Amino acid sequence: MAHNDVSFLFDLDGTLVDSVYQHVLAWQEALHAADIELSVWRIHRRIGMSGGLFTEMLLREVAVEITPTLLETLQKQHAEAYGRLVKWVRPLPGAASLLEYLTRAQIPWAIATSGRMATAKYNLELLGVDPAQAAVITRDEVRRAKPDPDLFLAAAARLKTDIAAAVIVGDSIWDMLAARRARGLGVGVLSGGYGQDELERSGAIRVYEDPADLLRHIDEIGGRT
Amino acid sequence: MAHNDVSFLFDLDGTLVDSVYQHVLAWQEALHAADIELSVWRIHRRIGMSGGLFTEMLLREVAVEITPTLLETLQKQHAEAYGRLVKWVRPLPGAASLLEYLTRAQIPWAIATSGRMATAKYNLELLGVDPAQAAVITRDEVRRAKPDPDLFLAAAARLKTDIAAAVIVGDSIWDMLAARRARGLGVGVLSGGYGQDELERSGAIRVYEDPADLLRHIDEIGGRT
Repeated sequence: MAHNDVSFLFDLDGTLVDSVYQHVLAWQEALHAADIELSVWRIHRRIGMSGGLFTEMLLREVAVEITPTLLETLQKQHAEAYGRLVKWVRPLPGAASLLEYLTRAQIPWAIATSGRMATAKYNLELLGVDPAQAAVITRDEVRRAKPDPDLFLAAAARLKTDIAAAVIVGDSIWDMLAARRARGLGVGVLSGGYGQDELERSGAIRVYEDPADLLRHIDEIGGRT
Repeated sequence: MAHNDVSFLFDLDGTLVDSVYQHVLAWQEALHAADIELSVWRIHRRIGMSGGLFTEMLLREVAVEITPTLLETLQKQHAEAYGRLVKWVRPLPGAASLLEYLTRAQIPWAIATSGRMATAKYNLELLGVDPAQAAVITRDEVRRAKPDPDLFLAAAARLKTDIAAAVIVGDSIWDMLAARRARGLGVGVLSGGYGQDELERSGAIRVYEDPADLLRHIDEIGGRT
């Protein structure tokens, strides 16, 4: 393990791919289908958590009984609705260039997402990332997703790098909380629609607009060649 | 004019009606149709501005030439896409109760929206507000929409109340900026998906979750009977 050598661990939705708002409306559709009315901003605030935790927190707000059947129905309806909305999803500006830059600079990087490979594969394809080649950790591979640190710890282990020197890039406060719990360095991006202040308060040492803006300032966070 | 008597002036989208995310994706569709790719969070950040200002600010970010034809096409495409998504739009929790409370308490209230009556009428219907009975000011009636103060000034004039004692409730920083420029008292709600800090920094004297939360705390901002 290379101590003190920087590595980059990325969240996927809202950080490399512009998919947060489609996920939000897909969850709204799924909840509607189950006769659960919940304001859309509350769904947005929870996006990026593990699917199970996400639905449990949402359902607690509306005092609906959480059964395994309901959770399964919601996950299925969400996947179906997202499948219809995914045609509007694009890589975020600079996402592909940022990954290419790191590869060229021989700085190890990985993607760690709370989503499952079944949905993440579409986003990875958009980015031109082959999960057979690149280090990609999904919800399927860890016991607990964000805000637990497992995904980022698994990503650092896969890269054989020191988590304490890892720059953990994410768009949501769940990424920043998971980064702190993993003892890595949280860096926020605004491209998921959260405010700069929320990201800073949950531990981001720096906040950029999107991957393009992060790449322009990469020397600030240890990404020099 | 009743000096020092409180009145309530409300924004509509994101403040009384849960329509912000549908507007955001409708704008994305409209921009796509015009071959303009813009990250969704940037659209979200501009929602609530006047339509003209909104498109001009967006187009400035992508360096596209702004022609009257392009603006008209975008407005038309947005209205068409929003028309398809509006079936998912609901009143925000507590919105109808809040307006009923104010009516019963004989506290004058008005709605002031940057949208035009052509689209606002659907949202007013959802809320059970008849624009022939209630004080509703739309973009059609003023020279400049938010963040200019015209809409709120016109609403206070319609109610024959003092703008300096008016509580101006909105979900976006454009509402808060317009409230300050109108010399009213800005109060934020989180239901449009913006952060509490942004609303406070743009002048909100208080921030609540949504209309239901505001109604629970209405004594804090002068709404006592």
